Amino acid sequence: MKIYMDYNATTPVDPRIAEVAIPYLKKDSFGNPSSFHNYGRMARKVLTEAREKVAEYLSVDPETISFNGSGSEGDNHAIKGAFFSRKDKGHHIITTKVEHSAVLGTCDWLEKNENAEITYLGVDEGGCLDPQQVADAIRDDTVLVTIMMANNETGVIFPIKEIVEICHQRGVLVHTDGVQALGKIPVDVNDLGVDLFSFAGHKIYAPKGIGGMYIRPGCEIQNLLHGGHQEYGLRAGTENILGIVAIGEAFRLIQEDFAEDEKRISRLRDKLENGILETIPYTKVNGNKEKRVCNTSNITIEFIEGEALLLALDMEGIAVSSGSACTTGSTDPSHVLAAMGVPPERARASLRISLGRFTTEEEVDVVLEKLVPMVSRLRSFSPIYPGDPK
Amino acid sequence: MKIYMDYNATTPVDPRIAEVAIPYLKKDSFGNPSSFHNYGRMARKVLTEAREKVAEYLSVDPETISFNGSGSEGDNHAIKGAFFSRKDKGHHIITTKVEHSAVLGTCDWLEKNENAEITYLGVDEGGCLDPQQVADAIRDDTVLVTIMMANNETGVIFPIKEIVEICHQRGVLVHTDGVQALGKIPVDVNDLGVDLFSFAGHKIYAPKGIGGMYIRPGCEIQNLLHGGHQEYGLRAGTENILGIVAIGEAFRLIQEDFAEDEKRISRLRDKLENGILETIPYTKVNGNKEKRVCNTSNITIEFIEGEALLLALDMEGIAVSSGSACTTGSTDPSHVLAAMGVPPERARASLRISLGRFTTEEEVDVVLEKLVPMVSRLRSFSPIYPGDPK
Repeated sequence: MKIYMDYNATTPVDPRIAEVAIPYLKKDSFGNPSSFHNYGRMARKVLTEAREKVAEYLSVDPETISFNGSGSEGDNHAIKGAFFSRKDKGHHIITTKVEHSAVLGTCDWLEKNENAEITYLGVDEGGCLDPQQVADAIRDDTVLVTIMMANNETGVIFPIKEIVEICHQRGVLVHTDGVQALGKIPVDVNDLGVDLFSFAGHKIYAPKGIGGMYIRPGCEIQNLLHGGHQEYGLRAGTENILGIVAIGEAFRLIQEDFAEDEKRISRLRDKLENGILETIPYTKVNGNKEKRVCNTSNITIEFIEGEALLLALDMEGIAVSSGSACTTGSTDPSHVLAAMGVPPERARASLRISLGRFTTEEEVDVVLEKLVPMVSRLRSFSPIYPGDPK
Repeated sequence: MKIYMDYNATTPVDPRIAEVAIPYLKKDSFGNPSSFHNYGRMARKVLTEAREKVAEYLSVDPETISFNGSGSEGDNHAIKGAFFSRKDKGHHIITTKVEHSAVLGTCDWLEKNENAEITYLGVDEGGCLDPQQVADAIRDDTVLVTIMMANNETGVIFPIKEIVEICHQRGVLVHTDGVQALGKIPVDVNDLGVDLFSFAGHKIYAPKGIGGMYIRPGCEIQNLLHGGHQEYGLRAGTENILGIVAIGEAFRLIQEDFAEDEKRISRLRDKLENGILETIPYTKVNGNKEKRVCNTSNITIEFIEGEALLLALDMEGIAVSSGSACTTGSTDPSHVLAAMGVPPERARASLRISLGRFTTEEEVDVVLEKLVPMVSRLRSFSPIYPGDPK
């Protein structure tokens, strides 16, 4: 039995999405939307329809949505675009220590190459941020606040609406990386009030290689990709029609399935998490349980090496992760857990389990059944394991 | 009968490519290549195999190939990446007036925002460039020469190998946009000697939304997309596995089919072009016929409005274009033809016909059969048409 519980890294393609996407691999539906002729018109039509589905779910106008290649591209575009268009106003950006690497990497580049000054806000031990921290950090030369909507490692949700109110009173733009929030909590971009919202297809059951961005009307940012006038002149490059059709359908399915998905996934996540906490000693959830998305559980299982446990689970066909897939290869412990004050040895003993639309009760039961003896065995090799509590 | 002769705008997906790509829309083959577990390993494996196919065709090492989202992204990355990494050395870039909009747009942005100085080289009336023009334009502060391998509107081929020799003697990097050359002329990147070579999937029968770049070993350029360490740390963002599998197969098919494709397509293009020149008076080919790729014909049909002819052809199910799809919507005549000295009224009376792998002899015959009376009818409305020559 193969069990996938790493939905925060990427999701399987929903068969309903595959069904609407596959025709765009066929010989007759391949036009370039910029072309004048019938093939081009057909492509423009599907592009428009997909954009409408995205906009409808996010409660915004279709003209505010532009498609791109990934969540990372959206983060890069939002941050660099805002910075370059507001250089005259200032060079200060506020973000947090627990952002996705695309946000941290872009801020770092601006700091090293364009004299940007970055304030990295900390989080509390539950991984939470107080909007007042943002208020306190804003300066006269602050041009952008970029804070994720939900954290990819812990699932902790950030108070974006409150942050937007504070920032807009001070004339500061707000970008939020919505990649890990979509499909896990309700997202109404209009209500949030953000200026820039980036999203990705492959975390919501569409294929990899497609993403997009909402840009609030009147919010002008510089382009990241220059050239053709695609996507309202905001992003050059021939449109990924297959990906766009797929992501449009992905948004439609969130709209259709969200309420039921959330209830079911949340129940399964809680069953799994509580099962682990109850049957395996020295375990602890990382991240504020009251302010979390429905699918994520980040658990420290003390006195094991996370990598060894991942490997043992993998050999049983169970896929989970030790942190963000986007920072794999690094031997550093999670920057998110570090920011929450989790010491390195505990961070290295942590698992991120993330469930999704196709997770079944049976899978949860199997994981619980396999995990308990596996942890015992690994701990039996540990010279420092104090033994199970009496 | 629907006839597609706009292969330079985008190509149909080859059914053999669709066949290898479709499994990556299925529920079991969706891993994130950055993931540690089995799903991730499977994705890494197909990523590696695709990279090897690309590298093999281009005669370079797989490690020099990184995938991205489009030809435009590659152009942006190459130019900005080279510029930002060599700011200390200088601010001067050399390009031509006939580049793709992604190159021109990026140069324009650097000029307006980063104090770049751009030299735009002209071309002769055949659309050709003399390598000596590049030699004459190089200055001590020149950091990059970016010149396309083949022009998208005329098919004219540029002397990249000679340009590279000149530039490397002067310590200047060379980028070439290979998008319109691939699959139309042999491309051996190792032999060309360029430092940076960008390419796109959707001009070589793979789907839209996938592209890539060759970066010569030792050539360091800054990243365009910051974040995760994907693609040897050169391009952040979860990899578009479906697109990557497809583009790998596209390169394999070029390797397999090129010799035969070129012979056949070139014969059909010549038959169509000569047919037009012989049966329709006041017609002229734009672009040096001796230095052209095999599939493109850019023809001025005087005393007609190109748009009217496109529309009439479109109504008969025949898809051609008046220029680059990436500049559609603009009412300006082609910047490529303008650079060749073609006056605006003649440029507006020009068609770009581009053939491809699926073009048949019958299609060529039908286009010729329909085009002749169509042009006569349109010319009959023209107050300035002097009548057919005696």
